[in-house]
Amino acid sequence: MSAQTNDSNKFKGRYNEPVPTSNLVSDENDFPEFEPFDEQATPRSHAPVGAPLSVQHVDMCQQINKPNHHTSAYDIQNLVVRRGMEFVMLVTFSRPLTPQDDFQLEFLIGSDPSVNRGSLVVVTCSSRQGGPWSGQIKEMQGASVTIGVTPSANAIVGKFRTYVAVVTGTGLQRTKRDPNTDLYLLFNAWAPEDAAFFPDEAGRREYVLNDVGIMYQGSAGAVSQRNWMFGQFERGVLDACIYILDASRMPIYDRGNVIKLVRKGSAMLNSQDDNGVLVGNWSDDYSMGTPPTSWTGSVKILLQYANTGVPVCFAQCWVFAGVFNTFLRCLGIPARPITNFSSAHDNTGNLKTDLIFKADGTPDRRHTRDSIWNYHCWNEVYIVRPDLPPGLGGWQVVDATPQETSDGHFRCGPASVAAIKEGLLCHPFDSGFVFAEVNSDVIFHKRDRYGTLSPFRVDKTHIGQAIYTKAVGSTASLDVTHNYKYPEGSAEDNRTMSRAEEYGVERDHSEVPDGQLSVSITAEKVMLGQDVNLFVDFQNQGEHPRTVQAHLNASVIFYTGVTANHFRAEDFTVTVQAYQTERVMLKVTAQEYLPHLGSQLSLHFIVTGQADDQSVSAINVTNLETPRLTVTVSGEPRVQQEMFVNVSFTNPFNFPLHNVHLAMEGPGLIDCRSRYYSAIDPQASISWNETFSPRLDGPRCILAVLDSNNLRQVWGMAEIIIITA
Amino acid sequence: MSAQTNDSNKFKGRYNEPVPTSNLVSDENDFPEFEPFDEQATPRSHAPVGAPLSVQHVDMCQQINKPNHHTSAYDIQNLVVRRGMEFVMLVTFSRPLTPQDDFQLEFLIGSDPSVNRGSLVVVTCSSRQGGPWSGQIKEMQGASVTIGVTPSANAIVGKFRTYVAVVTGTGLQRTKRDPNTDLYLLFNAWAPEDAAFFPDEAGRREYVLNDVGIMYQGSAGAVSQRNWMFGQFERGVLDACIYILDASRMPIYDRGNVIKLVRKGSAMLNSQDDNGVLVGNWSDDYSMGTPPTSWTGSVKILLQYANTGVPVCFAQCWVFAGVFNTFLRCLGIPARPITNFSSAHDNTGNLKTDLIFKADGTPDRRHTRDSIWNYHCWNEVYIVRPDLPPGLGGWQVVDATPQETSDGHFRCGPASVAAIKEGLLCHPFDSGFVFAEVNSDVIFHKRDRYGTLSPFRVDKTHIGQAIYTKAVGSTASLDVTHNYKYPEGSAEDNRTMSRAEEYGVERDHSEVPDGQLSVSITAEKVMLGQDVNLFVDFQNQGEHPRTVQAHLNASVIFYTGVTANHFRAEDFTVTVQAYQTERVMLKVTAQEYLPHLGSQLSLHFIVTGQADDQSVSAINVTNLETPRLTVTVSGEPRVQQEMFVNVSFTNPFNFPLHNVHLAMEGPGLIDCRSRYYSAIDPQASISWNETFSPRLDGPRCILAVLDSNNLRQVWGMAEIIIITA
Repeated sequence: MSAQTNDSNKFKGRYNEPVPTSNLVSDENDFPEFEPFDEQATPRSHAPVGAPLSVQHVDMCQQINKPNHHTSAYDIQNLVVRRGMEFVMLVTFSRPLTPQDDFQLEFLIGSDPSVNRGSLVVVTCSSRQGGPWSGQIKEMQGASVTIGVTPSANAIVGKFRTYVAVVTGTGLQRTKRDPNTDLYLLFNAWAPEDAAFFPDEAGRREYVLNDVGIMYQGSAGAVSQRNWMFGQFERGVLDACIYILDASRMPIYDRGNVIKLVRKGSAMLNSQDDNGVLVGNWSDDYSMGTPPTSWTGSVKILLQYANTGVPVCFAQCWVFAGVFNTFLRCLGIPARPITNFSSAHDNTGNLKTDLIFKADGTPDRRHTRDSIWNYHCWNEVYIVRPDLPPGLGGWQVVDATPQETSDGHFRCGPASVAAIKEGLLCHPFDSGFVFAEVNSDVIFHKRDRYGTLSPFRVDKTHIGQAIYTKAVGSTASLDVTHNYKYPEGSAEDNRTMSRAEEYGVERDHSEVPDGQLSVSITAEKVMLGQDVNLFVDFQNQGEHPRTVQAHLNASVIFYTGVTANHFRAEDFTVTVQAYQTERVMLKVTAQEYLPHLGSQLSLHFIVTGQADDQSVSAINVTNLETPRLTVTVSGEPRVQQEMFVNVSFTNPFNFPLHNVHLAMEGPGLIDCRSRYYSAIDPQASISWNETFSPRLDGPRCILAVLDSNNLRQVWGMAEIIIITA
Repeated sequence: MSAQTNDSNKFKGRYNEPVPTSNLVSDENDFPEFEPFDEQATPRSHAPVGAPLSVQHVDMCQQINKPNHHTSAYDIQNLVVRRGMEFVMLVTFSRPLTPQDDFQLEFLIGSDPSVNRGSLVVVTCSSRQGGPWSGQIKEMQGASVTIGVTPSANAIVGKFRTYVAVVTGTGLQRTKRDPNTDLYLLFNAWAPEDAAFFPDEAGRREYVLNDVGIMYQGSAGAVSQRNWMFGQFERGVLDACIYILDASRMPIYDRGNVIKLVRKGSAMLNSQDDNGVLVGNWSDDYSMGTPPTSWTGSVKILLQYANTGVPVCFAQCWVFAGVFNTFLRCLGIPARPITNFSSAHDNTGNLKTDLIFKADGTPDRRHTRDSIWNYHCWNEVYIVRPDLPPGLGGWQVVDATPQETSDGHFRCGPASVAAIKEGLLCHPFDSGFVFAEVNSDVIFHKRDRYGTLSPFRVDKTHIGQAIYTKAVGSTASLDVTHNYKYPEGSAEDNRTMSRAEEYGVERDHSEVPDGQLSVSITAEKVMLGQDVNLFVDFQNQGEHPRTVQAHLNASVIFYTGVTANHFRAEDFTVTVQAYQTERVMLKVTAQEYLPHLGSQLSLHFIVTGQADDQSVSAINVTNLETPRLTVTVSGEPRVQQEMFVNVSFTNPFNFPLHNVHLAMEGPGLIDCRSRYYSAIDPQASISWNETFSPRLDGPRCILAVLDSNNLRQVWGMAEIIIITA
């Protein structure tokens, strides 16, 4: 980006004017207060007859407009409205209007605004032609005129400057620049002509107006969750979202196009390429910033980015998804975070995730390049896709987590969910990439002595086992797997997969022996610090007994499937009778895994077995559960009334917690607060009190998160209903 | 890109291994010379019976392989072959092979090569399973074995390391690393299974093997041309092309995918975003580098980039297209440069190019943001598009000139030409952008006193008037407009335009008065330094005489349509009788325009007229022709024989030329040479002699270019046929 900024002279023979890319910082003197008519124009036609008309006051009527536009919750001085829907302004003139008087409203965005690009809009209330926004006089009371203005449903989104210009005999006499009359214009999920229209009210309340949400984590067999505070209405957040677009140098003219805007957002939420909002970090070392697990929500991140212009450290996928969701809802776009369990990543664009084993059945870590994420979070936006054939609008995947393989750039989407379900991978953007994330096959290879690979098992169901989001209007989870895929093996699924192949996606067609022996692993839910009981079931569907040379491999893994530490390898032998299942119970003690955990909470078990010529294998990921914080709220739950919150915690472990950071946040209730303890000894308790005054009414919540060097992912929440003052 | 390089630790929990992105510089010790078999593998099965076998010598058989693979012209030490087609290797062992002997060939690319990603290929000549490339023993003579190897038609493209490994009883015994056996593998336009297959031999000779070409410039009414030396076979160029992919950090695994590779190329040929090959400069100030007009071809640019790693200054569109064409042909992809005359640019993604006029008919430069390039050059590649529905493969637009509006990134394509013709804009990549470049409407607006615009004329034929490339096997031009568009106004054209609208492309539907008066401008071809005669024809199709208040506006413009200097404004009045045409001749003298030229050669004339309520306008762009250099070649035209070339020039102007740079280049004949003259006085002559020895036979040429502070675009060429030694 800097090339153009520094060397703009190199383009002087190329552009008539530089393309404006800044909304918040732009030339505020772009409009003369008096603009004389061109001398060569037709002579005075609208010369005033009485006393000269001038504008005394302009009122943006916040109390009337905000409830109508569902923008009351924004904690901001200026009027916020949604496009494609009328708002009113009260203009007080120096005297009552006469039929000879003529005036116009002017709305400007960005520097050097242009009528034909939509960044300068002239609104007339007479028969005289204006711009694309319509205006009408709704009421006149003496010298005060109430004017209704309807921005077009495809208007530029951002912060407009407002002027009123009176036509005099010799030119246009404008109001002075007044920051109080600046107007924020958003996408409108309530307007049927808007590309961000959402068809039902419950959905709009959830996907645009709900400022808290849930991120699903863990693994397909053991889903866990944590709350995330979107906080899109908190003070400074709307300006921060516009700042992100400015920092991306997105042309002002493009900011009404929701497709371009969400694609730009997916690029800007990560710091790669463009110094965007968040720095990804998948190591165990977060000493140079904030650990991804310790954030309570998006607000602090967005405000820090907007205040410093420097990417915020650190994020993993749910942080990218949480902050991106705030950005989208804040600008009025229906959006929700999504979790895909067992997500295929970093493959070469085909549908194969290759796991490689040595001849003895142990994992060949050196030659295995692919990994399966326990889960991956992205976002969906609900938008119209006029650029695609009919039927492919609605929910679209956008992903802000930096992905090397997405077209070589760190962004992803919007990719139509309907197109992914149908295997229609011939449309933009990045649908093939998302298709692979939910549909890859896992192929188990043995590597022979010559370095060549032969597949011995293909698992077509492991990847994309479940896809979750929060339900509308409740805290329940909603399984949306069926939006992405037809049932495995159905006729429709086969059609989708062949279509994907027609569009060049490489699938596995390995011939693998169809064995009579199989193995599976199950584990019970277990708290961090407890022993893990693994149940390994060998099933023999053949008519002869089989003796299996089996091997257990146990590691601590990152949620990305990458091994952090390996802690156990064990051989054992099992004989399974014909048509029988033999269960082996293996105990993994806390003493074994605790020294290897670091800050990870996922244990990964692989069992492989060899019986004559048949190889079998099974994988299990067990997530250790963490204790909860207790959050209690007291006081009268009323807007602007002082209330109290207490966060308490007792260390249940026999080891001390070091370098403990506590944070809490509650959109509409309490801003981000934090507290530090150098250590919490075994069985010791802490208790933290804060006071606050609710800003917004309705059901609200406060989330608290504890983060320490040796324990992460500890949180607690309180829910309350605030009544109006 | 640097974020990941510097902070790779942040990703340690995310990737099992870093993705290899370097071909030329990679770990050369990645393969042990002796690799013992795993102890737990099955016991010795292939133990040798006689004396131990070892490899004495590996010969890559360049003299046999190069003609078969059409790679003889590459000036490089190593073997260059094309994928999907057999090449042979001669391996000399320590003794004749016996049936018990076993060996394999191994081809490696990039660091840490991987069998399942195709960067490590094992080729066996026995029944034992190898990788995707096939091998067979073709001949045995004593201890020498001729082996045929056929790389798969989708193999990775780049520089492979070659090993021969003999199976011993205890492991694999490999040859030492030998740079002489390194192998360059290219795309193959001759192999039907290759995505870069081209269906006829004449086309392959032109689009892959021709190392010189023609760039069309000027304007639609007056096409000019200049030669461009692609030089894809010159020493160092192939390595430079691979270096570009390395500099882009393109994963090795993706380099067999022609779609990803050309898209990456379009991004890397310009310096924006990624420190790519060329820095664009559209000013008149080239003091910090080489003026775009002064290059003779691509070789010097590519070698300079590969040697320094720093973007080369400076380029305009034909330089980007010329160098990109070299890159594509060098890697084996059929490619050609294209010129679009009257190209619409930098619009907001709709099909409207807005020209704005004041009430008096003069151009309103302050409010006109759009410009029409006299011409714009891009490239086409001929490739299969499995990612799109049938029928959209073949020629695809790729454009390396940095375009702000192409998805916010500095790259463009591949966009299917067939999809553009049909208006199927719902497929990747950037087809809507290219569609607008060739199909926009020009809308003439008047801006009224209130700042609002009203259209008075729409020209649907001005943009994309003609699209040219060089014909196959000749120096004639080929009009390929019909590949991009159906005839204006035809039923098919209407269908295309409505389809484009269905896919969200905004078109103009202004109601403009259908007037009876029109105006047009013509000018004769004119040499720089001569007067220009403009013929302005006013045509009255009505039944009453009309008096027109007309206005002529004359400027020097950049080829991008942007005004460099304005030099004349003149009012005149014309009366046109009913059903008559009235011609006005306006003379523009050389004295008028010469002081304003700078280094531009395009004069831009607008005539506007007002008769009662009707406005008319016409635009003319006249390109001044420049003198030619005389290039003569003497000596016996035979490979490796000394020959002579003379470049001569006489300054025909009455002003001296200052700071004169002369350059010449002839692929296969003579490398880049240059000479400097501080001044050439009026009527003075220069003469420059060089000697050279032809490297390649066949029809060849030498291009010379003169560049000075006050005269550019002067060139000359000599063509000769070289016979073999």
